[in-house]
Amino acid sequence: LIPTRADCLALDAADPLAFARERFALPDGVIYLDGNSLGPLPKATTERLRRTVEQEWGQGLIRSWNEADWINAPLRLGAKIARLIGARPHEVLVADSTSVNLYKLASAAAALRPERSVILTEPGNFPTELYILQGIAEQLGHKLRVRTVARDALKDALDAEVAVLVLTHVHYKSGEVHDMAALTARAHEVGALTVWDLSHSTGALPVELNAAGADFAVGCGYKYLNGGPGAPAFLYVAERWAEAARSPLSGWMGHAAPFEFVDDYRPASGVARMLCGTPSILAMAALEAGLATFDEVDMAQVRAKSAALSELFIALVEARLPGVFELASPREPALRGSQVSLAHPHGYAIMSALIETGVIGDFRAPDILRFGFTPLYTRHVDVFDAVERLDAVMADRRFEHPRYAERAAVT
Amino acid sequence: LIPTRADCLALDAADPLAFARERFALPDGVIYLDGNSLGPLPKATTERLRRTVEQEWGQGLIRSWNEADWINAPLRLGAKIARLIGARPHEVLVADSTSVNLYKLASAAAALRPERSVILTEPGNFPTELYILQGIAEQLGHKLRVRTVARDALKDALDAEVAVLVLTHVHYKSGEVHDMAALTARAHEVGALTVWDLSHSTGALPVELNAAGADFAVGCGYKYLNGGPGAPAFLYVAERWAEAARSPLSGWMGHAAPFEFVDDYRPASGVARMLCGTPSILAMAALEAGLATFDEVDMAQVRAKSAALSELFIALVEARLPGVFELASPREPALRGSQVSLAHPHGYAIMSALIETGVIGDFRAPDILRFGFTPLYTRHVDVFDAVERLDAVMADRRFEHPRYAERAAVT
Repeated sequence: LIPTRADCLALDAADPLAFARERFALPDGVIYLDGNSLGPLPKATTERLRRTVEQEWGQGLIRSWNEADWINAPLRLGAKIARLIGARPHEVLVADSTSVNLYKLASAAAALRPERSVILTEPGNFPTELYILQGIAEQLGHKLRVRTVARDALKDALDAEVAVLVLTHVHYKSGEVHDMAALTARAHEVGALTVWDLSHSTGALPVELNAAGADFAVGCGYKYLNGGPGAPAFLYVAERWAEAARSPLSGWMGHAAPFEFVDDYRPASGVARMLCGTPSILAMAALEAGLATFDEVDMAQVRAKSAALSELFIALVEARLPGVFELASPREPALRGSQVSLAHPHGYAIMSALIETGVIGDFRAPDILRFGFTPLYTRHVDVFDAVERLDAVMADRRFEHPRYAERAAVT
Repeated sequence: LIPTRADCLALDAADPLAFARERFALPDGVIYLDGNSLGPLPKATTERLRRTVEQEWGQGLIRSWNEADWINAPLRLGAKIARLIGARPHEVLVADSTSVNLYKLASAAAALRPERSVILTEPGNFPTELYILQGIAEQLGHKLRVRTVARDALKDALDAEVAVLVLTHVHYKSGEVHDMAALTARAHEVGALTVWDLSHSTGALPVELNAAGADFAVGCGYKYLNGGPGAPAFLYVAERWAEAARSPLSGWMGHAAPFEFVDDYRPASGVARMLCGTPSILAMAALEAGLATFDEVDMAQVRAKSAALSELFIALVEARLPGVFELASPREPALRGSQVSLAHPHGYAIMSALIETGVIGDFRAPDILRFGFTPLYTRHVDVFDAVERLDAVMADRRFEHPRYAERAAVT
């Protein structure tokens, strides 16, 4: 039985997370299914930034490093993220970008296994992982090499040569979820360490770093955490590594006593040593307001609603557009993150035409239409209406119009 | 003859840069002599951020990467900074922090001189330089070592072992200016490359990177450029190195085709390869508004007024408080940046008491009171009034009160 629009409205009326939608300033007429790429503007962010800019910066000036506690923003925000990823508050830090943080932690992890020569990862996932690891290998003059192995073969590829296993927990394109606990356990059996990229996981599904025994992790602030475009990223260092791991990016903010201005680097105690330069306080303020959209939100309810929304989407697409798209995400919801990908040879043009109807997803080369289902503000009825508009785009084949042929700079 | 307050008001009336003060939202009752640490809020920043947050992010959502040209912000802002530092527009990029950028460029420069083993710098300057260089040396397993040599001996220390000379152009504490052209020429004579940190130079005095033959440079967005607390930093790669220099931080935004999502890193052409992760667009927007405070501003006039303000300050301090402070900056204005430092054993307490009077400078361990003279908004009469309040703080010895004894987290 195909769900009707009335069914969807009934599901929304019974949704225990419905209260959270009021926290967002969503544009009229838009169904936003791209919060997995850039989270929307929380209502509270505008006022928070006004205060940070006009009061703290404008009036407080340099004094606000102490008086507005700017100096502790990286650790304060890290502690708030910790709850979402199953970490202790003092294991998480907000700093820099995901790519820079990955560089720090992959380098630090490899240095903890100096007798080993391999960084193991998978091909075809979000490429900044591979690019950063290739940069580390090149820089170290091939003392380390990057080995890529398809995900099914990762467990068997873990051997005594592997220093570090670096994986993105939820695949950026397919949404497929790695078994973090099993892969971490296997890595530890062979003496390797793990670095998990949680960019497509944090705020999308419950993550349990401590329970999985994870060593290191990084993640993104601008997707499900709603921190704004290019928001600062975070990193996690398991307590047991906090005094041993060293960042190659040993900037002054990670020094044990940055305001003593001594000549020799001495790392701060704990995760704070993973700071490098001065963080953007405006970006931190926006991310802190973004994190507040998760206040009183139960991540188990987020996961349940995420599965329900994506199941609904797949059911409606397959019922209304049978055989048109290939499902490019796992069919089993437990194996998916909070997104569904559909493959189609005209993917770019179809997504462009769909966006013009007000349904915003994104395209990922070469042929993927990607739809994110963010439970804090997406309703069942939004999913219903989105599929209706996708149906309309396919029905009149408007995507074949030449204006959809040219790729934009950012897709 | 000691200048009077009336003299100062007359100088302000004749100041060709007086128009620029209207561009700033300065708090009432404050004389802000710390723009060399954190520039004040430009009036236009509030509206620019409102537009970026509410319109571009809130309404445009992910589409603003193309439609609001977010994707080109790093190069667009870099081109605006180029004018201030004597560079070609395509040689400058805004990204990350000064520390991270220094890591990229010092690593890249060293890799261009693989047969050499020394990074040369000076002791006692802003320590993130030393910390970052120590991190590079440690990471590369002592293929490279950091040699520190007092500034008078730098020219003689440049020899065939030196791969890279890394120096801060204007000393963070004393304000002393290195002779960039002479040191660069000497470095090139022995086959070494140069990385200049322009954090205390950019927007403070004319800088001529191209004319000096400089190879690489980094600098700060939150001091004289008024980009907001922790604003993104910039970096410069001389055109002749643009296709040879490689960033060890090879993140996806520096890829030749980031949205193709291929597995192998291939650097973008030109300075864009020095991008790493996704930049904070909110921080970029604030920096762009900060850069606009330099529109129609002649850097030669900035330099002339800077010298006049700092000369006035020294003259007034020495006339009203003879023998009380030791001048910790060069006496010759041509050898100073846009700041004056005074040494006093009770420096921290004196600065704390002075800040309570509304005159904001800062303290630098162990004994330096530091005063920045930023010509866009500082008036001659501000300098006069600041010295009057400093005189009052010293006259009644209020700084000896125990409440000034305890150092704040950030000084």
